[in-house]
Amino acid sequence: MVWFLKTIKPGKETVMKTVMNLNIPPKDKKIGDQVRSYLNTLTKPPGSLGRVEELAIQLGEITGDSFPIVSPPGIIVFAADNGVTQEGVSAFPQEVTGQMVTNFLSGGSAINSLSRSIKSKLKIIDIGVAANIDENDSELVSKKVRYGTANFYLENAMTKEETLRAMEVGMEETLKMIKHEGIRCLIPGEMGIGNTTTSSAILSVLTGTSVDNVTDRGTGIDSDKAKHKRHIIKQALQHRKPNPNDPIDVLSKVGGLDIAGITGAIITAANNRIPILLDGLISTTAALVSQQINTNIADYLIVGHRSSEIGHDIAIQYLHKQPLLDLDMRLGEGSGAALAFPIVDNAIKLLTEMATFKKAGVSNKNYMQDKTD
Amino acid sequence: MVWFLKTIKPGKETVMKTVMNLNIPPKDKKIGDQVRSYLNTLTKPPGSLGRVEELAIQLGEITGDSFPIVSPPGIIVFAADNGVTQEGVSAFPQEVTGQMVTNFLSGGSAINSLSRSIKSKLKIIDIGVAANIDENDSELVSKKVRYGTANFYLENAMTKEETLRAMEVGMEETLKMIKHEGIRCLIPGEMGIGNTTTSSAILSVLTGTSVDNVTDRGTGIDSDKAKHKRHIIKQALQHRKPNPNDPIDVLSKVGGLDIAGITGAIITAANNRIPILLDGLISTTAALVSQQINTNIADYLIVGHRSSEIGHDIAIQYLHKQPLLDLDMRLGEGSGAALAFPIVDNAIKLLTEMATFKKAGVSNKNYMQDKTD
Repeated sequence: MVWFLKTIKPGKETVMKTVMNLNIPPKDKKIGDQVRSYLNTLTKPPGSLGRVEELAIQLGEITGDSFPIVSPPGIIVFAADNGVTQEGVSAFPQEVTGQMVTNFLSGGSAINSLSRSIKSKLKIIDIGVAANIDENDSELVSKKVRYGTANFYLENAMTKEETLRAMEVGMEETLKMIKHEGIRCLIPGEMGIGNTTTSSAILSVLTGTSVDNVTDRGTGIDSDKAKHKRHIIKQALQHRKPNPNDPIDVLSKVGGLDIAGITGAIITAANNRIPILLDGLISTTAALVSQQINTNIADYLIVGHRSSEIGHDIAIQYLHKQPLLDLDMRLGEGSGAALAFPIVDNAIKLLTEMATFKKAGVSNKNYMQDKTD
Repeated sequence: MVWFLKTIKPGKETVMKTVMNLNIPPKDKKIGDQVRSYLNTLTKPPGSLGRVEELAIQLGEITGDSFPIVSPPGIIVFAADNGVTQEGVSAFPQEVTGQMVTNFLSGGSAINSLSRSIKSKLKIIDIGVAANIDENDSELVSKKVRYGTANFYLENAMTKEETLRAMEVGMEETLKMIKHEGIRCLIPGEMGIGNTTTSSAILSVLTGTSVDNVTDRGTGIDSDKAKHKRHIIKQALQHRKPNPNDPIDVLSKVGGLDIAGITGAIITAANNRIPILLDGLISTTAALVSQQINTNIADYLIVGHRSSEIGHDIAIQYLHKQPLLDLDMRLGEGSGAALAFPIVDNAIKLLTEMATFKKAGVSNKNYMQDKTD
């Protein structure tokens, strides 16, 4: 198969046009059937690898390749601040966002460890951290759209132009990773104190679920603070009135720059038939935004894990997906998805490396008789 | 910590003595507490890695090391035939056991692919295949106790001496892997047509659960054959009368050589403070046998996945464990455990590689204030 790349041209009007005229192909069912048939010739009871077989089939459908390649994966961490942290919705102070970016750059965070473990490409993008981060470090991609969003309790988080610009950053940087680093699976990650608050707000609007049912304790706030967080989101939704049928409007009014960046990343990966392995609440919320923009995007999504944040489960159900892992994680950064990547990788290794019954000289006669009896 | 090895002396009487006088230390709670405290100093919201943190704590308790090592893992596949296949309880003919051993030796099975992926040591043991396998292949460990067990529908599967000999093989070969190959995590696997039938029989006896509730479709029999399988097991249990309080009696009357071998392997790993990552129905049944021999063994067990075989869930509950994966797999060979190994490995990598708040200069002030308010 010829590996094709769609170029996203810069400029906000072009982004809007690109987004509105996406030509994302539906999943390739024919290739999926080929993979399914081939799996039944391998030396194991048919179907005995369970969801690992379904995953191999989905990866065939996504890539259009009956022996898909998923390595190397590429993790992109979008870091941004959220003005709503002024309302005291988080357990950590806002400066932690920038401090954690420094930690990413020196290799000490969870996502660094996991990225090394799965031999992933890793890109850290400052898409809107409120502080200045020492740009001497060449590892940081500095694409600050603004110094954090505005406090959406008081005003719109950002303008539509800023939202589109953040999406464009996500698109451009993902395309670069596909083109120059050859990534074959996208793992979007994020860092931004307050971003479970923005995600819960978006999720409530897009799914029509009450704020109470999609808002949880984030990094670990107590129940009083959680009650306050829900109050802030409810008030904000009443005042901002985001239009549930206009995902760009929702992003700009109650979203975050990280979520907009991830949305752009997901769109670009799907546009290039690259599977997207989703992490928790924030990236799955961005996936819902993406799916609202183009429904075919859902075919390209794999949910890496089920976060312990209650809203995540709602988002997963809305996407009609089943997570690969369910380990009560709620760290973000892309960590749950990176931890799930070996399952994706092994699904393909099993598909490509296992011997067939015929080649191995293993009998599957009785089984076949049973099936035709 | 000094790495210690306990030698198992050969000879069946010594095995029985060894087994009955096991000195397996309980888990090291002090080290567990150290790991727990240290995890809270790492740059993530406390507890946000969920069960991955619990796993790191358990590995500390098992190994007695606050920075445990789990690599390289060692997979041991015990291959053996079961006389009860004469009763038509399986979807595949008996000769598949030997054919699959040949497949293991040429690297074409699922466990070969997974073993390579997790950089595991891999040992294939013929502990009782009914056919002769070409011994020219030096990769095979030939330790045939007998040419398959007897048909337990008609007579005891094997003698007590044969059972102990099979356990001894498991002990010796595991000790060699620890001593000579330096394995730090044991993944017991098996291959043996009919071994879900033997496992269900053992499980029913040891847990007091009805045969109907622990017997499923194995490699993929239809519902009529499954009904027949349950009937055969019920009849056998009535006639063989295995003593639920004597695990060696249960193994010899309705067990298999593979299950006895795994039991020996698990005992030896626990005896050397090596974590045991369990696969599905067969190895978890062997774990129950081991736990019956020495209750401290349960501390050393990690359940890699939940198999789609109904009996497996009963066994897991009986061990008071939660599986790491739940992907509807039912292949055996150790495959579900091997697929889960990266989670175990990453739990340790995260513990040892992540920066502390202090070292990274990340603030956790607000969080700490919340906790002391």
